[in-house]
Order: sequence, then structure tokens, then C-alpha cells
Amino acid sequence: MSEQEKLEQELQAVIKGISPLDEKAMEKARKRMDLLTKPQGSLGRMEDLAVQLAGITGDFFPVSTKKRVVVMASDHGVTEEGISAYPSEVTAQMVANFTGGGAAINVLGRQGEVEVVVVDVGVKVDTSLPGVKRVRVRAGTDNLRRRPAMSRSEALQAVLAGIDCAGEAVEAGVKVLATGEMGIGNTTASSAVMAALSGYETSLVVGRGTGLDDEKLLHKQEVVSGALEFHRPDPADPLGVLSLVGGLEIAALTGLIIGSVRRRIPVVVDGFISSTAALAAVKLCPLVKQYLIPSHLSAESGHALLMDYLDLKPYIYMGMRLGEGTGAVLAMHLVEAAARLTQEMATFEDANVSNKEAKKAGSETKGEEQ
Amino acid sequence: MSEQEKLEQELQAVIKGISPLDEKAMEKARKRMDLLTKPQGSLGRMEDLAVQLAGITGDFFPVSTKKRVVVMASDHGVTEEGISAYPSEVTAQMVANFTGGGAAINVLGRQGEVEVVVVDVGVKVDTSLPGVKRVRVRAGTDNLRRRPAMSRSEALQAVLAGIDCAGEAVEAGVKVLATGEMGIGNTTASSAVMAALSGYETSLVVGRGTGLDDEKLLHKQEVVSGALEFHRPDPADPLGVLSLVGGLEIAALTGLIIGSVRRRIPVVVDGFISSTAALAAVKLCPLVKQYLIPSHLSAESGHALLMDYLDLKPYIYMGMRLGEGTGAVLAMHLVEAAARLTQEMATFEDANVSNKEAKKAGSETKGEEQ
Repeated sequence: MSEQEKLEQELQAVIKGISPLDEKAMEKARKRMDLLTKPQGSLGRMEDLAVQLAGITGDFFPVSTKKRVVVMASDHGVTEEGISAYPSEVTAQMVANFTGGGAAINVLGRQGEVEVVVVDVGVKVDTSLPGVKRVRVRAGTDNLRRRPAMSRSEALQAVLAGIDCAGEAVEAGVKVLATGEMGIGNTTASSAVMAALSGYETSLVVGRGTGLDDEKLLHKQEVVSGALEFHRPDPADPLGVLSLVGGLEIAALTGLIIGSVRRRIPVVVDGFISSTAALAAVKLCPLVKQYLIPSHLSAESGHALLMDYLDLKPYIYMGMRLGEGTGAVLAMHLVEAAARLTQEMATFEDANVSNKEAKKAGSETKGEEQ
Repeated sequence: MSEQEKLEQELQAVIKGISPLDEKAMEKARKRMDLLTKPQGSLGRMEDLAVQLAGITGDFFPVSTKKRVVVMASDHGVTEEGISAYPSEVTAQMVANFTGGGAAINVLGRQGEVEVVVVDVGVKVDTSLPGVKRVRVRAGTDNLRRRPAMSRSEALQAVLAGIDCAGEAVEAGVKVLATGEMGIGNTTASSAVMAALSGYETSLVVGRGTGLDDEKLLHKQEVVSGALEFHRPDPADPLGVLSLVGGLEIAALTGLIIGSVRRRIPVVVDGFISSTAALAAVKLCPLVKQYLIPSHLSAESGHALLMDYLDLKPYIYMGMRLGEGTGAVLAMHLVEAAARLTQEMATFEDANVSNKEAKKAGSETKGEEQ
């Protein structure tokens, strides 16, 4: 058996271990929600989230204590096509900034008590910084416009590295994960992956990234269309898509999501890049879809469409487009809120509050709840 | 001078003390934002929020440390028309639940380190509970369908009580306030206030509240239309509207918002009831509009329209319709994030990260930012 076949088998074994949400735990959480001192259903999507958390963890009172955001960093050969407003070196510089605690994700992590774990999956220049986990599959991808971004084995390695990161988090007692990334050029790779897997037109999935002008946006669209025409990736083969037009951090995030689902801990999905990784994960294993927790709506133009495609509705609308996991870490406040409300609110009985149902006992109609 | 005239003068004196946002502080915050290690504008509305916070506080680094949600509680005589799914006694029962720490707002307050202050502005049965601030203007309003909800003097007293609550918060070192409320029947009063002040059709502003069926929703609409036909409140006289078809907690929240603006501390506006109070505050003093910080979009049907009318875009979409200040307290995480990002992020220079502008120095076009 070739090395690549072994890796494929390893991934398939993880995917086979994934099962649907725990319906019993969900039903219990739903019932609990209806006993709490509030009009039935009045916490809206917060209640759905609490039920989903129960379904993921199988726990009657899913509480999120230890939180972690995994920031996957890598470089993109396609930057030589001039598709980003920033030079490639910024990836390594930002990794250093993460270790120094000065980036947005560090600030939001401190606020939300979310540990920031930075992983070098393939930054061009070896970061070799204390505090950076190194699982360098290769020193950045090749230029996806002209050559495969990476080999299929490399894509598999990156996905498996992401799965390992989820496992390590669970071993360390982490109860909820967030996806984050850094990689100059990665909106280009993500757009290509999204277009390949969803079939959407390039013009709909390519956006301005860190801030392109109209002319460069058009050029970026041409680069993505050109890459897709050149490689003609098979939409039914997500790993092929990741290797031909993806990125190392995107593949690693795909793995992180699959790994979280396999280990049954909630994973909060950040913006455009992370959602593309989630799309690849869903294509690899459709059950993943039930587990995904959205966070914010990114200002990157393809994100709204991608959320629709995944049937996810973001919780936070701040118009951010920074990545790093910033939106996901903000949404962790909502995840924690859902868990706490389930656990800490008084029931009608506890608090001696008259319930609508009690009042209506004996009446013939129960009324349609909003 | 009559008692009522004195109260009017007192309110007018507070309103006269309100000035526009501090443009210099805003400009400084904007400049600071552009130095931070992120693509320009990539924090989106988070940056606008940081700039607004600077404009409110006049502070270069607006930081929110001590936080408080003020939950105004009162009863509504209009409940005798059968417009709520819950009996009037629930108001007092929920006030007791607040003091016991078992309500949703208590849970979210503990999570966000937001102090919950409960104010009895006119619960039907005197709550007299330790931990409840009592400024009882009257024991619930009269039935607004058939009589004025309260006198103009009483509306003024409630507004001034709210202003005092903002002042007390500032004295206690609170740096950011959230609006909250509890009052069975208060979506009916709020709908009437909104319709009277905005001119929108009753059918657009009346919703299901805590969970009415279709038949009762229609009845609630008739109660609101009937009240408006009966009183014909003058849309140019917000105090008149509050006294004829409003509620004590709505008037008190109007005061809380005006008081916060006067004292220049940010106030985060919760859902439908709170936004109606914000509408009344804006009608009393249009400058208030610049200061308003939205929170979530309520599932109560009139809220989206009211947000549009106030030109506010909510940050959080959880489909909640519980009130109590729950949405506002969740949004305080975002307010704190905006403040922390401004203060704690590294600049490009600090972190030795190559900036786009630096890269482009000397180039002719600077490109259009998204």
C-alpha cells in the first residue's frame, strides 16, 4: 500500500467514526428549555444552539469551560500572480504578531478566555517561534494558477494534521474549538475551492480580500477562473479540489472540523476561509453539517452565498473580514450563553412563576407559538 | 409654576445639556484604527463602534470596565383587555426571580460581568424586595384602551426617574449601561407608542409578544388601533404619547437613555420595548440618535421596522424575544471587544508587520478599499 493510500485510509477511518447528533440529549435539552422562566421559545436561536450543543456533546447540560481557537497559518504560491493587497511575508510577520499577543485574535481571545494556538502548516519561511506548533507539510503551496497547489498526499497530511489538533485539544480538556487562519492569498484559494465544490460562478465567489481595487478584483477573478479551467477539479473529490486549488491552512481546517465532529466537541466556524474548509468537510462527510456552528457574516462577498449553501445562518453581523478566527471567538460568547442559560436559569416551579401552560390548563386550544 | 411645569423644566434642562458626539475623539480613534495590524477597515462595524464609543466618551481609548443593565419593571392596566399570554402577576413574580438570580438576564449578567439593577417603577403589587430599587410612580398604568395610561406628570416622573438611574450609575463608576425591562402587557403599550410616534400602521407594529395565537394577535391589533383612535396622541409630543398609550417602564427607559447620553456613557439598547423608549428619546432630543448602540434583532415583528426607522442595524441575530435586557447584555461583549481592540492591538510599527500602505508608497493609485 502506498503512503498516499495509507493516509486516505487513515482519514476514512476517522470519517467512519462520525455519527449523527444525539437525539435523546437534544430532546432532553428541548424539554429543559420549556421549563425555564421565559415564554416558550423566546430565546429563539439561542435555544436551538443549546439543543445542538446537547446533540453534539450528548450532555444534558453542555457547558463550555476551556476554549481554544486554532489559527492555521500557511503561504500561497498564487501570491506571485498579484492577487493580494499584501506581500507574502506578512503571513510570517503576523505569526510573530500572534506569538507577541498583539493581533486582533489575541485581544479577543484574552477577552473571551479563549486560548490561541497558532499552527505553522506551511509558512514560506519556517517560523520556528516559541509558541508556534510546527506541522509544516511544505513551505507554502505552489502557484495554483499554473500547477497543483500541493500533492494529494500533502493535502491528506494537512487534513490529518488538523484532525490531530482537534484530538490534542480534547486531550487538553478543551470543550469548544474555534477555527482561525492566517495566509496571504487565502481568499483566492478559498474562492477556487468554493467554486469547485459548489459550482457557483467565479464572479460570485471572488471578493476583495484584504482590500483590492476594482481592477485587481477582476484580475483575481481571472486567476481563479483560469485555475479552475486549467485543473478542472472533480467536485465529487474534495481532497482533489483541496490539493489542486486549495491551501495548506484550508486543508488543515477541514481536518480540524472533522476531528472536532469525530470527538464530539462543538466547533465554531469563522468567516470565508473557515467556511470553505467547512464546505470541504461536509463534502467529505455530510454528517458534519449537523455539527457546524456558524459565527459571523463576513464582509468578503462570497461568504453570504456560502452560508446559504451550507444552510447556516450567522449569529453576528459586524461586517468584519479579518479572519484569524476573530468572528468565531466573538461567537463563543453566544455558545457560552446558550450553555449557561440551559444550566443556570430557574424553572417556573423553582421560582414560583405562573406559567402560560399552567394558566391554560384545561383550555381546549393551546395557541400557536411564534 | 405647577408641579408638572417644574418637571417639564427639569427634563428640558437635561436635554439642553446634550451635545453632539466628540468629533475630535472620533477622528483620533479612526486614525488609531488604521495603524493597527489588520487590513484597513477589516474590522468593519467593530471599527465604527469603536469610533462611536470614542465620540460618546471623548476618550481616545474608550474602555468599558464596570457594566450595568437596568431592568425597569411595571404593570399595564391594558392586560384586562386580554392582550397577553401571561397574567399580570407574572411581572412581580419575575421581579422576585430577578432578585433570586434565576432569570435569563441574571445568567447573562453573570457571564458578562454585568450588574443587574432592578427598578420597580410601578409594579401592581408593591414588590418591596431587598435588591429592588423602588421608584414607584404609581401601581401600574391604567387601561390605555379606555383611559390615559397615566397622567403627564406621572410620565415625566418616570422619565426623570430613568435619568436619575443613569446618573446613579455614573456616580457608581459604571462605564456602560444596557436597557432592560419586565412588564406583562408591554409589547402592547410599545406598539401603541411606536405607531403614534412613527405613523406606521398598527398591523405592522403589533406582534405576538410572549406568544399569542392568530385570533389574539388580531384582538391585540384592535386594542392598539382602538386606543390610538380614542386618544389621538400628538406625534410631535412624545411625552403626551408616553402618558396616553405608554408604560411606566417605557418612560423610565426613555429617561435612562437620555440620562446616559447627557452623562456621555454608552447605552446599549435591547429589543422592541427598549427601542420604543429609544424612539421616544430621539423624538424628545434628536441628538440622542448618534449615541444609540443597537444590540440584537428581536423576533417581535415590529422591531425590524423600528430599527430601520431609527437607522440602526442590530449586531446580533439570535431571534430572541424575551426582553429583560438579554440582547443588550449579549451585545456588551461586542462593545467590550471594540474597546479592547482599539486599546490592545499592536500597530504595524510595534509588530514589524509590512503595511499595505507602506508597500504602496510611491505608487500612484491607492486603490479602493472595500
